[in-house]
Amino acid sequence: MKKRILAGVILALISSQVAAKSWMLTDADTSTEKGDWQINSSQLKLGNEPFSIQQKVLHGGKQEGSKVITLTSKNGLTIMLSPTRGMDLLRVTGHGVRLGWDSPVNEVVNPAYMNLESRNGLGWLEGFNEMMVRCGFEWTGHPVTKDGVIYTLHGKAGNTPASKVEVIVDDKAPHEIRIRGLLKEHTFKKANLETWTELRYVPGSDSFTIHDVLTNKADYPHDYQIIYHSNFGTPILEENARFIAPLASVSPFNDYAKKGLDHWATYGAPTKDFDEMVFNLKPKADSNGKTVAAVINSKGDKGASIEFDTHQLPLLTMWKNTDTLKQGYVTGIEPGTNYAYPVTIEKEQGRVKQLQAGESTEFTLTYSLLKDAAAVSKVEQRVKDIQGNESIKVDEKPIAVE
Amino acid sequence: MKKRILAGVILALISSQVAAKSWMLTDADTSTEKGDWQINSSQLKLGNEPFSIQQKVLHGGKQEGSKVITLTSKNGLTIMLSPTRGMDLLRVTGHGVRLGWDSPVNEVVNPAYMNLESRNGLGWLEGFNEMMVRCGFEWTGHPVTKDGVIYTLHGKAGNTPASKVEVIVDDKAPHEIRIRGLLKEHTFKKANLETWTELRYVPGSDSFTIHDVLTNKADYPHDYQIIYHSNFGTPILEENARFIAPLASVSPFNDYAKKGLDHWATYGAPTKDFDEMVFNLKPKADSNGKTVAAVINSKGDKGASIEFDTHQLPLLTMWKNTDTLKQGYVTGIEPGTNYAYPVTIEKEQGRVKQLQAGESTEFTLTYSLLKDAAAVSKVEQRVKDIQGNESIKVDEKPIAVE
Amino acid sequence: MKKRILAGVILALISSQVAAKSWMLTDADTSTEKGDWQINSSQLKLGNEPFSIQQKVLHGGKQEGSKVITLTSKNGLTIMLSPTRGMDLLRVTGHGVRLGWDSPVNEVVNPAYMNLESRNGLGWLEGFNEMMVRCGFEWTGHPVTKDGVIYTLHGKAGNTPASKVEVIVDDKAPHEIRIRGLLKEHTFKKANLETWTELRYVPGSDSFTIHDVLTNKADYPHDYQIIYHSNFGTPILEENARFIAPLASVSPFNDYAKKGLDHWATYGAPTKDFDEMVFNLKPKADSNGKTVAAVINSKGDKGASIEFDTHQLPLLTMWKNTDTLKQGYVTGIEPGTNYAYPVTIEKEQGRVKQLQAGESTEFTLTYSLLKDAAAVSKVEQRVKDIQGNESIKVDEKPIAVE
Repeated sequence: MKKRILAGVILALISSQVAAKSWMLTDADTSTEKGDWQINSSQLKLGNEPFSIQQKVLHGGKQEGSKVITLTSKNGLTIMLSPTRGMDLLRVTGHGVRLGWDSPVNEVVNPAYMNLESRNGLGWLEGFNEMMVRCGFEWTGHPVTKDGVIYTLHGKAGNTPASKVEVIVDDKAPHEIRIRGLLKEHTFKKANLETWTELRYVPGSDSFTIHDVLTNKADYPHDYQIIYHSNFGTPILEENARFIAPLASVSPFNDYAKKGLDHWATYGAPTKDFDEMVFNLKPKADSNGKTVAAVINSKGDKGASIEFDTHQLPLLTMWKNTDTLKQGYVTGIEPGTNYAYPVTIEKEQGRVKQLQAGESTEFTLTYSLLKDAAAVSKVEQRVKDIQGNESIKVDEKPIAVE
Repeated sequence: MKKRILAGVILALISSQVAAKSWMLTDADTSTEKGDWQINSSQLKLGNEPFSIQQKVLHGGKQEGSKVITLTSKNGLTIMLSPTRGMDLLRVTGHGVRLGWDSPVNEVVNPAYMNLESRNGLGWLEGFNEMMVRCGFEWTGHPVTKDGVIYTLHGKAGNTPASKVEVIVDDKAPHEIRIRGLLKEHTFKKANLETWTELRYVPGSDSFTIHDVLTNKADYPHDYQIIYHSNFGTPILEENARFIAPLASVSPFNDYAKKGLDHWATYGAPTKDFDEMVFNLKPKADSNGKTVAAVINSKGDKGASIEFDTHQLPLLTMWKNTDTLKQGYVTGIEPGTNYAYPVTIEKEQGRVKQLQAGESTEFTLTYSLLKDAAAVSKVEQRVKDIQGNESIKVDEKPIAVE
Repeated sequence: MKKRILAGVILALISSQVAAKSWMLTDADTSTEKGDWQINSSQLKLGNEPFSIQQKVLHGGKQEGSKVITLTSKNGLTIMLSPTRGMDLLRVTGHGVRLGWDSPVNEVVNPAYMNLESRNGLGWLEGFNEMMVRCGFEWTGHPVTKDGVIYTLHGKAGNTPASKVEVIVDDKAPHEIRIRGLLKEHTFKKANLETWTELRYVPGSDSFTIHDVLTNKADYPHDYQIIYHSNFGTPILEENARFIAPLASVSPFNDYAKKGLDHWATYGAPTKDFDEMVFNLKPKADSNGKTVAAVINSKGDKGASIEFDTHQLPLLTMWKNTDTLKQGYVTGIEPGTNYAYPVTIEKEQGRVKQLQAGESTEFTLTYSLLKDAAAVSKVEQRVKDIQGNESIKVDEKPIAVE
């Protein structure tokens, strides 16, 4: 009997696999690169919710050769991601709202022109402008030099060109779209980590899901770290915009952030000399370990939320960078396995996770564009429900000194 | 009344803008890249002084993907510059004379293959072969490590691929040609400098002008430095070739240069083990702040001169690298905001300039190929006129020790 | 009379030059790049031993833009090399045997995506997967930082894109094929080394020859180092596979290798936590200075041998990396001018060679795929003949400590 059920499941899986169209845009194994490419729902005769998916090879400056995939849903979101930059999300728009921000770095920098080691390990800042950049997986956090090795800011995944890029569209309504990319962190004797990143989107909807599977392909255990560095500027971020999340505790990242602890969850207008404050958060979750964090505008009719699983991503960093518009007025909501301290400190304090030989782990995050007061209220209610009666513990002392 | 004048000025500006043809060869904003491309005066029906402008994408070795623009004027100069390498001038020829030199580096190295941090900050030397390379703008000078950051030799502008490249040809005779390129030095939290470089050339003439506008796009003041590292070898440089410029003072860059102070302005033949001597010069200028420096050959019938504005570029470095031909027999005439000491020393000694938020500054240099004794004499006379009766003060002691 | 002989020689040389077809696939001087390209013996009407030569431009991940040339001989070997990676040999197959190995690095990494300085000078490991990689020529060996300069692991040649790539096929039977590539290590004031690499292969045969000519183009003497890092995994490497070579002496590279000194020439099965042991060997040679080293499988019916000239390459390193298959189960047979200690130690101990100004030196190595017991026996006999009655001196103490 058990066998029959299993067979049924397998058949269902196979048919679910088969019942989709797929396009391999990039494949290092077969040396495939489609370059400029596009499909749309009319061509595919998938009519209800019009969408298109386009890949474009960029030119000019340090973005020469960078690729961008744009998924456009007429009634939903437009999502841009870059296979050349670790399948990072560049920006998402819909209903007059933009998820993302305006960085002084205004090109999609090809990693060929990056030197992560420069600026004493801050080279990453020469390419940073994403709405969501994967900070990992070999390491993450602020740079540190140990035994002569520079553990550069936020690791290498975000500056790794994808070895495989695949677009999949379900044959069946609602025609879910998946854009998958394979990131390799391969170094003889040092690392053999592979991450299949996946963006899942149903045309017409206001949410999308990131589903990443990280595998340690080596025969030895390997540490890993990941922070999903998700960044929001105008129009959501503004004076009196608020950060909300159900939390067990909050503490300032350093002494400078301590000064902002009183109003840590409320944002100021663009402020000269504000620079950045970072807060370490311990999320509370529902009984399944699920939680949500969001930034919502002053009136409470626009926002962005991220649902994630605290079993996968137990920690949350809130990055408040409400300096002037030109400097990059932005806040980061950053679910992660870690805080943003250097890997040496994270290791010392016991927060660095490990994968055994051959082991995989996954990360699932659902991002929603909150387009109106109703959408915002729903998230606020969910935060309240998870928070319950327990108040947020405020720790005045940073847990570490860099 | 004022308004009317302003309107007139604006109209004039617009018409001067309109009365030109232009081609955008590269544009990161629109992801334009024309690749191999050319125009010429016949096609454009601009008859008097034949010229052509060609862009070519290079291949092979470390120059894979580098672009070179060659402006050829039948009766004037042929000017080669590279958009991939910061709009640097590679070489200029005309009337049997070559401005430029023969470096052991004989490819136009794509910055994708450069590591400026290598060799303890001397990586720049793996690409150095230009007739004129912009050393700046975030910093310049000899490398130095401070707080773990390597301020690499001569900064990054010369190894920055241009984000926009535009060719403009005036409709009206003498059909001035402008080749413009946008260099971005953008790093989140660190720098937001942009430089519009411009080469101006009138077909048939023996001079061209570099006109660069540097803007600090950030909301905070930012230091900048620039040295226009302009380099000349054979046939101008030879035994008894001379350097001339109206000067207030000269001092040796270091103890080794001190040994050559007696004959600092006269060049030797290619000399084994000479290596390089560097001299710090303080130029004198005319009442408008304009001055000139030149290198002229032994007979005084060939040379290269650079006119510049001491309000913009108050300092001048003379680099005497009269080692053997194969090592790179070359002299540098290097107007700048700074000398070539590390940025730490330049800062300490008060020579580093600063741009306020949003502020721009400009640099204008006119290079001339001196094709005969008459052309040389004219420059010599100008140098004498500016020098006047005042003699050059010789300081034996280097102003700094690296 | 002498003159007549010379004339005859010259004529013979010219005719030998002329009696071949050649194709320039890449040429930085003329900016040639043929990209995807192929020829075969049918097209060329060279009938007896069918072969083809194909160049392919790779895509995907960090191999974007890397080129691979595949020489296929129907009855002999298939040889893959990469012009983008220093003309390194990627793998060789024939008669069901593979020369090469399976590295965790499974792409042909374009040096544009490499940072040799990363990981405290171990960045090279992010691209290492070749059957033969040239470790040199400016320096080689384990990384070391001296005066702030990182001498990165095994130098830069293996990560240098070839400036010229030429394919030559002799008109006369046996239609020897030569694939030549020019590697430049050019840095103003630092190095002007050029290496013409050459692969020689006669279709149908089981051997090929590497013939490299290194020239110091500078006007000053320059140190050089080279290790031909030649790597073999399955199916040759297996439990009880053996390393053979006529030797004067063997010593462990370090204390860890000391533990394996007893059985140093026999290989174990893939072994967890084995990591690597390295042995420094002093080869014995025949009266012409020629010698041979080989790895042969357990049954003695498969193997790989390398013949080389001890006047050119006096030292031999044996790298035993019999860790697990996934980590890279591999042995290196590495004829060289040097051992793998950092250049500082090699220099101190007097093993670093020098080229005078303009001087050239050459390196000739013949690799053979030993397809059966007969081929293996022949090499074993040659090893015995050179070894003679003299036994191998075993030095228990490493000659240096890193």
